[in-house]
Amino acid sequence: MDAIENLLTRRSVRKYKPDMVPEDILSKILEAGTFAATGMGRQSPVIIAVTDRKTRDMLSEMNAAVMGSGGDPFYGAPVVLVVLADKSVGTYKYDGSLVMGNLMNAAHALGVSSCWIHRAKEEFETEKGRELLKSLGITGDYEGIGHCILGYADCEMPAPKERKKNYIYYVK
Amino acid sequence: MDAIENLLTRRSVRKYKPDMVPEDILSKILEAGTFAATGMGRQSPVIIAVTDRKTRDMLSEMNAAVMGSGGDPFYGAPVVLVVLADKSVGTYKYDGSLVMGNLMNAAHALGVSSCWIHRAKEEFETEKGRELLKSLGITGDYEGIGHCILGYADCEMPAPKERKKNYIYYVK
Repeated sequence: MDAIENLLTRRSVRKYKPDMVPEDILSKILEAGTFAATGMGRQSPVIIAVTDRKTRDMLSEMNAAVMGSGGDPFYGAPVVLVVLADKSVGTYKYDGSLVMGNLMNAAHALGVSSCWIHRAKEEFETEKGRELLKSLGITGDYEGIGHCILGYADCEMPAPKERKKNYIYYVK
Repeated sequence: MDAIENLLTRRSVRKYKPDMVPEDILSKILEAGTFAATGMGRQSPVIIAVTDRKTRDMLSEMNAAVMGSGGDPFYGAPVVLVVLADKSVGTYKYDGSLVMGNLMNAAHALGVSSCWIHRAKEEFETEKGRELLKSLGITGDYEGIGHCILGYADCEMPAPKERKKNYIYYVK
């Protein structure tokens, strides 16, 4: 897809089919994520690509617990990409967000729907979250930035909200 | 340009020609910025598009002052897009970062080079920064997220740094 068109037509999708994203597509999305800009090119983020159902469901439960609600905060999406970033790098939060942006934009370019789900910070501050990081060999002081859920939309593409007035101010 | 190729080939450019970015190109870049995802679609960011030389130079000086150094932190780029976001919205820092990402990716798609320049936060906490916001009619508690400098590269495209090992962890 044309790059500008892609940026304008990406939407956040909140209802998914159970169909898995093929491995080669997922791999392209992840690669685009790693090419996001980071402060001084220090690459402070990491991405955990979860396709294992059990782990996906565990994260969903942990996320719901942070919210204090039931249901599946991942809207049925079969893939969850968790982005975390190294707090010892001053730009970590911005860096991780840019990775999230590239993941969502790349997904859309490849016909895969996505949505940023928050509360990764709180999730990975829990004992369970810390254990998951440790089991993967992720050491250091990582903070959860966001979950990029991926899958195939089980709904019409949502229409974009109107852009707010005064989004842009010109100083010519 | 193809959307995936665009995400993979964008680079941060640190040397610019003085040539101005045409208004129609700039306007497309800005539009793509406003279509970045934001938490609950609340559109917490604003973008100040600076093409006025005097204001651009003032921001450059303010930025250098935060660093405590001389020189032009904007590397000669003629356009500075300042992204700020409304601190009263919980996701403001992530929202603003996604706008920055879309601006940089859209610029690259249109043959315009870019770089994220930090210290917008400190810059807009100064009296001078607050005054600039006020003069534009930007009220409310906005925090500087970043400067997206734009222009035409006066150098070869930098080669990408090697992606770090262990950027991606799979849970299959």
